[in-house]
Amino acid sequence: MHMSKTIFIEPLTAEAFAPFGDIIDAAGQPTVMINNDKCARHTDLAQLSFDSRGKAGISVFDGQPYALPHSLPLVERHPLGSQAFIPMSDAPFLVIVAQDQDGAPTTVRAFLTDRQQGINIHRNVWHGVLTPLGSPAKFAVIDWIGSENNLEEFVFETALRVEQAT
Amino acid sequence: MHMSKTIFIEPLTAEAFAPFGDIIDAAGQPTVMINNDKCARHTDLAQLSFDSRGKAGISVFDGQPYALPHSLPLVERHPLGSQAFIPMSDAPFLVIVAQDQDGAPTTVRAFLTDRQQGINIHRNVWHGVLTPLGSPAKFAVIDWIGSENNLEEFVFETALRVEQAT
Repeated sequence: MHMSKTIFIEPLTAEAFAPFGDIIDAAGQPTVMINNDKCARHTDLAQLSFDSRGKAGISVFDGQPYALPHSLPLVERHPLGSQAFIPMSDAPFLVIVAQDQDGAPTTVRAFLTDRQQGINIHRNVWHGVLTPLGSPAKFAVIDWIGSENNLEEFVFETALRVEQAT
Repeated sequence: MHMSKTIFIEPLTAEAFAPFGDIIDAAGQPTVMINNDKCARHTDLAQLSFDSRGKAGISVFDGQPYALPHSLPLVERHPLGSQAFIPMSDAPFLVIVAQDQDGAPTTVRAFLTDRQQGINIHRNVWHGVLTPLGSPAKFAVIDWIGSENNLEEFVFETALRVEQAT
């Protein structure tokens, strides 16, 4: 009998996520107070990288929800640019990423965002597609816009199972 | 007696906002369905423009709320880059912009966003500072990062009054 591999969901921390990308939130010390001290600015939180054959753009992804346990058939990566996901509501979402070994994903990990946390996936890092949980959700996405192919997919022989840690 | 000028709040529509910037939302027809039809992608919604002496970055603004009627002491503009505000919750916020005449703001207008609507203010367009209403709110901001001065302020002789249309 062939058992699918199970990935247990971790909390999203900057340290755990560092090999894959950046967390975009207001958790740290503000860089500067602005607007007569009414606003804390946390400046330049994401390592953006965009191939010069295209440009950076802001798009909106309007996504249908997924349920847990989640069956993960594939991961993808974008060789031409980083990709940031900013939730436009305060619902958490699932972030799945993987290390690369010789051009294939290895050591898949799954994180759950806290409220009002966005993420930036570094250029060419393997990741799962946008995975809101429970209800439909909109995200602003800052990624590479251009006509060259920017998508590489890796389909698992057997879908992985992503579930809550017990 | 000196009366302050009153600005009545308008609903935010793409047509009314076009001279000042872009609306970042999922209102129009999706550009493409992705992720096995689970996600509608609305691509490249904002006219981004960043001076080459710096770079684009993603920051988080953690803002205290304002109340209506709102007393508006000043507007500002950023000569070196566009500035996009993506709400990280589904609370509406106030967007104040103005036309320019000979280097000074004129015809100030105030818009209220709908839920899950971001905005991008075009480079060098006069605007009010981030104005969440009612409760504290976090925003992801995509703007120009660099060391040159990117802020020009215009302080009104008498603060304007911004209030709900009756």
